[in-house]
Amino acid sequence: MEQYKRSHTCGELTAAQAGERVTLNGWVHRNRNHGGVHFINLRDRYGITQVVIDEDASADLRDTAESLKYEYCIAVEGTVRRRPDSMVNTDMTTGEVEIQADTIVVLTTCETLPFMIDERSETNEDLRLKYRYLDLRSFSMQRKIKLRADVSYRVREYLGTEGFLEIETPTMIRSTPEGARDFLIPSRLNPGSFYAMPQSPQLFKQILMVSGFDKYFQLAHCFRDEDLRGDRQPEHTQVDIEMSFVDQDDIFRLIEGLMEHVFKHTLNIDLKTPFPRISYDDAMNLYGSDKPDLRFDMEMQDFNAHVPGSGFGVFESVVENGGAVKVLVAPGAAGYSRKQITDLEETAKTYGAKGLAWTKVSEEGTLEGGIGKFFTDSSEKILSELSASPGDLLLFVADSWKVSCTALGAVRKRLGSELELVEKGGATPSHFAFAWIVDFPLFEYDEEGEKWEAAHHMFTMPQAKYLDSMENDPGAVKGALYDLVCNGIELASGSIRIHDPRLQQRIFDIVGFNKEEAERRFGFLMNAFRYGAPPHGGIAPGLDRLVMLMSGESTIREVMAFPKNTQGINPMDDSPSPVDPAQLKELGLELKLPDRE
Amino acid sequence: MEQYKRSHTCGELTAAQAGERVTLNGWVHRNRNHGGVHFINLRDRYGITQVVIDEDASADLRDTAESLKYEYCIAVEGTVRRRPDSMVNTDMTTGEVEIQADTIVVLTTCETLPFMIDERSETNEDLRLKYRYLDLRSFSMQRKIKLRADVSYRVREYLGTEGFLEIETPTMIRSTPEGARDFLIPSRLNPGSFYAMPQSPQLFKQILMVSGFDKYFQLAHCFRDEDLRGDRQPEHTQVDIEMSFVDQDDIFRLIEGLMEHVFKHTLNIDLKTPFPRISYDDAMNLYGSDKPDLRFDMEMQDFNAHVPGSGFGVFESVVENGGAVKVLVAPGAAGYSRKQITDLEETAKTYGAKGLAWTKVSEEGTLEGGIGKFFTDSSEKILSELSASPGDLLLFVADSWKVSCTALGAVRKRLGSELELVEKGGATPSHFAFAWIVDFPLFEYDEEGEKWEAAHHMFTMPQAKYLDSMENDPGAVKGALYDLVCNGIELASGSIRIHDPRLQQRIFDIVGFNKEEAERRFGFLMNAFRYGAPPHGGIAPGLDRLVMLMSGESTIREVMAFPKNTQGINPMDDSPSPVDPAQLKELGLELKLPDRE
Repeated sequence: MEQYKRSHTCGELTAAQAGERVTLNGWVHRNRNHGGVHFINLRDRYGITQVVIDEDASADLRDTAESLKYEYCIAVEGTVRRRPDSMVNTDMTTGEVEIQADTIVVLTTCETLPFMIDERSETNEDLRLKYRYLDLRSFSMQRKIKLRADVSYRVREYLGTEGFLEIETPTMIRSTPEGARDFLIPSRLNPGSFYAMPQSPQLFKQILMVSGFDKYFQLAHCFRDEDLRGDRQPEHTQVDIEMSFVDQDDIFRLIEGLMEHVFKHTLNIDLKTPFPRISYDDAMNLYGSDKPDLRFDMEMQDFNAHVPGSGFGVFESVVENGGAVKVLVAPGAAGYSRKQITDLEETAKTYGAKGLAWTKVSEEGTLEGGIGKFFTDSSEKILSELSASPGDLLLFVADSWKVSCTALGAVRKRLGSELELVEKGGATPSHFAFAWIVDFPLFEYDEEGEKWEAAHHMFTMPQAKYLDSMENDPGAVKGALYDLVCNGIELASGSIRIHDPRLQQRIFDIVGFNKEEAERRFGFLMNAFRYGAPPHGGIAPGLDRLVMLMSGESTIREVMAFPKNTQGINPMDDSPSPVDPAQLKELGLELKLPDRE
Repeated sequence: MEQYKRSHTCGELTAAQAGERVTLNGWVHRNRNHGGVHFINLRDRYGITQVVIDEDASADLRDTAESLKYEYCIAVEGTVRRRPDSMVNTDMTTGEVEIQADTIVVLTTCETLPFMIDERSETNEDLRLKYRYLDLRSFSMQRKIKLRADVSYRVREYLGTEGFLEIETPTMIRSTPEGARDFLIPSRLNPGSFYAMPQSPQLFKQILMVSGFDKYFQLAHCFRDEDLRGDRQPEHTQVDIEMSFVDQDDIFRLIEGLMEHVFKHTLNIDLKTPFPRISYDDAMNLYGSDKPDLRFDMEMQDFNAHVPGSGFGVFESVVENGGAVKVLVAPGAAGYSRKQITDLEETAKTYGAKGLAWTKVSEEGTLEGGIGKFFTDSSEKILSELSASPGDLLLFVADSWKVSCTALGAVRKRLGSELELVEKGGATPSHFAFAWIVDFPLFEYDEEGEKWEAAHHMFTMPQAKYLDSMENDPGAVKGALYDLVCNGIELASGSIRIHDPRLQQRIFDIVGFNKEEAERRFGFLMNAFRYGAPPHGGIAPGLDRLVMLMSGESTIREVMAFPKNTQGINPMDDSPSPVDPAQLKELGLELKLPDRE
């Protein structure tokens, strides 16, 4: 490489270098022959520079230029010259100049491409993943991978400045399945025994607090053996954070500062902090979700007060039985067709609603159609209290509080998109609606198992006012538990942890977790807590989701260099794959596959 | 934590804060009662502050102080005051002051410690690992873990400034066993198939070059299922680096700059660069090792020229058969006893030598003892050419070139320590003797398998001058292959890679690697090379070894937060462990343990 090594990248030459001799290395992005003059767009990750082989160049050079196909990797030597004024391309940094080439060396050739390297390929995703090395050459993928690297760098910069130490925790740990399944690693030195891959470094980061490292973080790889529906990946990265001697406000301030720093130094966006705080109950009541999309308002409202005496039996019986009737005023949506409303109803049903009632506000200010007839007498009062106007569509779900909220919340989210209440794309502060969701319930009742379960995880501290009474009414207990949400996505989840082994035991008792089980799974953490554990808490923003959000993508696969597909397969290296039986034998294992049906 | 949250750490108060009210959080490091006055050394990771409970404090406060045992985690409120002049401790930042406490709150208690939290515990290592959370509280461990975090941070800072992108490659990849064994991960979604954990991101970083990311790095976790003799760990971290359009010199400059930056900003040491470059042949001839300890000279010398006609048959027949007689002049070691020389001989034999011949230079300048009698006539010439002086000990190994070099090199290393040629500890540039080892052979002959093997790995580029003839004499081919060594430790290894599929095939042919095997294991990389692969090369400094070296430790376990022991077990979480048979069933596996013998 000594001879033809680049003097510049393909993204940096301007008229200032006119007249200079330069060498460029890169890929043939385009190669056109206009009346005997070759125009080659040479690309690297920094940009594109136009290379010109003039009509009067040597026959050899022109032959070489003629031979260049898409994605040949070449070296070019030549002289920088200004383009004629009519040819200046102001869209590119290098648009003022071109290279008058006198030498072209083909470093490597390229076979026929399976798809074009382009801004936004319409190619089938598995083909993109199989040829990921080509897919990653697009400016679009390069930008996202660079954004991810930049975000990671700024995260470390900020946390380093705040006095945090990045400490690596093991990838091969004890299996303590909880929530998702662990991936296992058979041990050859200890046949019959297995390591697990961490679902998160949760126990180790708490151990680090016991060790006196009061400000820990790690860009940690986390592994979950889940069924891969939706946007899941077997491995993902989180910004794992834990602190000692802090309360919830300290963690909020830290993360707000972190997001400010990252957004400022990557997208040049000034986020507005502090982020609003919304209680879990309010989030459910107003938006029907614990990760509400706050880029638009359209809050849900309570309708219970208007139900008694309406004569609409369905609503009346829900209210009598302690349920909730929730209503959403969709502005200007009175033109929705029956078909469109049925589609919205399908969404509501997906979330457990039995139906979606509706009515419309006529131009005269009356309630027309759907269940409007039951509320003729009170329509004026209703419109006033709901702040509904002519041309609005009213949508109702009546069910248990949780179902009503969740189902109508899903309708709200869909309407946000259908009514274009959310501005697409762009990169201004208004495109990123952050909020803290606080005061989560600590326990959830598992109807099937007929028992209480930890809503988040078992190490979360109950809020102080519930400490005395939590066994009496677990459902009422709020935890020192918080989520950071943005644009309807849960970006981070965290809590203040229990550091007192006796309190921890009370939680285990409530969720019916016996001592032996606790000892077997979390024994080392419980032991550690007997030796002067400090009060501590933490949080873990998901890096993939953050970068996905920042780059306007809707799947985390778009911001990972080498993701698996939805079957857990990487079409590029074709993993997972069968292995040599001798490898299994060494591990003390044999295959015992279920019969195919 | 709101009420008793620290206002300062235990490492920051000085006389400048005298008179201020402060709150500290930390651990009880010592608690002494001197005539009714309690002196508590309160510790956190920033330092120790002395807390005083005066004789006239309230009975409650004095009772609390009395009750504090080692490692209780407490909060202290009080007033900063200057210590009496006679009590000032100039060894500590906080040594001028103490806290006159008026409130002490026990946050958590601590059971009896299994060992003392101290600068340098003499505790058995497994006990330290079992209670790692206590072991990590020592200032010694805190310093090392902080150094590791600081080194990682500075590595990223430097590489970021140099335009490198940190890109995460997968932890779950295709099994391509080579060198060491792969750890395997059974796939539940694809029963009978397995992911492997990367021994390094080698193939993926080359794929990233094909993708156009011309400057990649990653602090990558690497996994090798090796027998854990010596200082191996199943997982370690390397600073994985790859660049396109570069030659060896570019990589050397980058790494020299990296080391300068890291040493300057962590240990405040100005390294001298460029590092010396020593060919593999010279390293073997002079130091008998491809990772020589260059903190002392004592170079080995060739003795072949003095052998013919000496009448010492052993040497003569080695020389006649094309072998090498190597000699080491150990300065001032003529006093070595027969026993000491026998011990050195044992070292030589470990490395394959049949024996270690010796003689001494008498005060009169003659060769006395051992094989000296064979060289009486030529002694003057010998002493002059070897620059040996009265009082020196001469040590010889005669064997094949490689055995002579290696065995006498091991003797050299041992003597370096015995003769105290290496200055212990300390942190000046002279304590770190870096060098590049270059011009390594590309192939090694495997005597057992009677075939040529890749000395490093199969993707290394042969040096240009061997390109035409390498099939004729594989043993003569030098690769574009380099190691960075320091103080006798291999810190990094790297090479310029092959980017031409045809050249790659020639290498596969020389090592007898058939097309099907190559396709099965590295097919995706070979495929990628068909699409305009750029010339590229890289290197991968080991983070654990670097930090070990910088902290003056001799095992990487001392610079990892949670290492495994030499049986691959983590005594803290007791991994690996048996798992629920249902977990195995889901994976399509069952145990098939070998019968115990």
